[in-house]
Amino acid sequence: MPVISVPDPHWITALEGIEDAELVAWDLKDSVPRDDIEVVVPPYMGNAARLARLAELPRLQAVQLVTAGYEHAVPYLPSGVALANGAGIHDTSTAELALALMLASQRRIPDFVRAQESGKWLRAAGAPSLADRRVLVVGYGSVGRAIVSRLQAFEAQVTAVASRARGGDELVDRVHGVDELPSLLPDAEIVVLIVPLTDSTRHLADAGFLAALPDDALVVNVARGGVVDTDALLAECRTGRLRAALDVTDPEPLPSEHPLWRTEGVLISPHVGGASTAFEPRALRFLRRELAAYAEGLGLRHIVHRA
Amino acid sequence: MPVISVPDPHWITALEGIEDAELVAWDLKDSVPRDDIEVVVPPYMGNAARLARLAELPRLQAVQLVTAGYEHAVPYLPSGVALANGAGIHDTSTAELALALMLASQRRIPDFVRAQESGKWLRAAGAPSLADRRVLVVGYGSVGRAIVSRLQAFEAQVTAVASRARGGDELVDRVHGVDELPSLLPDAEIVVLIVPLTDSTRHLADAGFLAALPDDALVVNVARGGVVDTDALLAECRTGRLRAALDVTDPEPLPSEHPLWRTEGVLISPHVGGASTAFEPRALRFLRRELAAYAEGLGLRHIVHRA
Repeated sequence: MPVISVPDPHWITALEGIEDAELVAWDLKDSVPRDDIEVVVPPYMGNAARLARLAELPRLQAVQLVTAGYEHAVPYLPSGVALANGAGIHDTSTAELALALMLASQRRIPDFVRAQESGKWLRAAGAPSLADRRVLVVGYGSVGRAIVSRLQAFEAQVTAVASRARGGDELVDRVHGVDELPSLLPDAEIVVLIVPLTDSTRHLADAGFLAALPDDALVVNVARGGVVDTDALLAECRTGRLRAALDVTDPEPLPSEHPLWRTEGVLISPHVGGASTAFEPRALRFLRRELAAYAEGLGLRHIVHRA
Repeated sequence: MPVISVPDPHWITALEGIEDAELVAWDLKDSVPRDDIEVVVPPYMGNAARLARLAELPRLQAVQLVTAGYEHAVPYLPSGVALANGAGIHDTSTAELALALMLASQRRIPDFVRAQESGKWLRAAGAPSLADRRVLVVGYGSVGRAIVSRLQAFEAQVTAVASRARGGDELVDRVHGVDELPSLLPDAEIVVLIVPLTDSTRHLADAGFLAALPDDALVVNVARGGVVDTDALLAECRTGRLRAALDVTDPEPLPSEHPLWRTEGVLISPHVGGASTAFEPRALRFLRRELAAYAEGLGLRHIVHRA
């Protein structure tokens, strides 16, 4: 019967009923509780350096993350050990924040929050709705799809872009390739970035990308800060030509003196896309499926790396 | 061929192709352009007192509003004239703002806007998501339904309430009656008010209603200010027991010295539910249908009053 560690003792109770596995609690802060652990589920938020302790487990077979990103774990992976990511766990929370940022920016919530401090009832002309907007979603993995399904409930006109063009699905007629961006950007009133950060997506939204957008377009980044060239975005927002709503920045955290903080038309949230109460129930549903599959000998199904 | 006035000359062009009717532009500010007008479409936002001019039209048959509310027009309606409202025109814009207020409140956008002023990257624990929340939507007309369909895209658990209990539809299994509120409120993490203001809904959300809500519940008002007892809501928010997101207030505009402006956990937008760019295309689609039906002799289909 494989021994599997989970980061929180409450999770052992919540995961009750997985047959053929023994669950133990280990948050990687304390010393290794037993040396026969086969699978480790590290804490959601935690110091990556603590993963060095994985080397103390002679029978370790796999590490199951509850994050989508996994680059932080690769350097600590002992030889022969598989790494699985938490694909899909954060879709709901991140897509929800993406929509919160878009709706707040479009419907002028930041203006109203600031007016509230001085008790000012802003007589405002019609704000741009999210309805009817042409929205370009760049990145069409599971978070991208969760964003698109919500956008459609708001009557937005969505175009999806992935690394390569492909056929459609139940949400979109077709998926455009990233090479088509030059012809797609001039039509986009809102562009949402939700690609993984790789060598090919670093500074994807550079000066040329941004210059191709029409006046007053909104740039939404819920991917990673490095996907956007911050200086280029700052320049476009400072002139008032573009607007931005950013859950991630480069650098991050954004230093308090950084001019992006105080640029009109820029809304910044402090990398809280995945950090909501939507996380835990979805993480537990995911782990129940994955750990049960492992215990049955089927293996983990979201392996992204093997050392 | 009936003569119909619309409030904006651009709308004549936009409505081109309605057969068997002659459209003229009249915003009710200028004097009556011709005395054979049969149907008047008054401006969306305008001084209600200008409707007194309707008495100058001897052949007037009907007034077609582009607002859902119509009480403001009743006193000015000449004898024998029918009044039709703009049912459904504002569903999209108002539902969108309701979701913007809910998402912003849940995911702490106001805190981030305020932190932005001092360049502060808030290290925040998990905010409450909209996903999984038990949301009570009080009022299940066309705006209520538009709110519910969006809430479902966010994986919220929705309960709908109307004046009387009835069977379900494509969105909900059943609609609860307002008499069931005492048993529904203690379970509601978010309550959305979207009822018309009538004698029976005035102060619907009174001290007893609010006291029945669980701690930390969010009260969202996108109906009319008078649906909520402002003093009772203020008392509950001041102690930090409840939160609120209000697009409408009582009194309105809210005076700058009113304590509601500066109560923590309260987000106020200045009655902008319908005021977005979503309005015009939907108003024009609605008028095209309704005015064509009138011109064909079928009459207006959303008559709400007859003088």
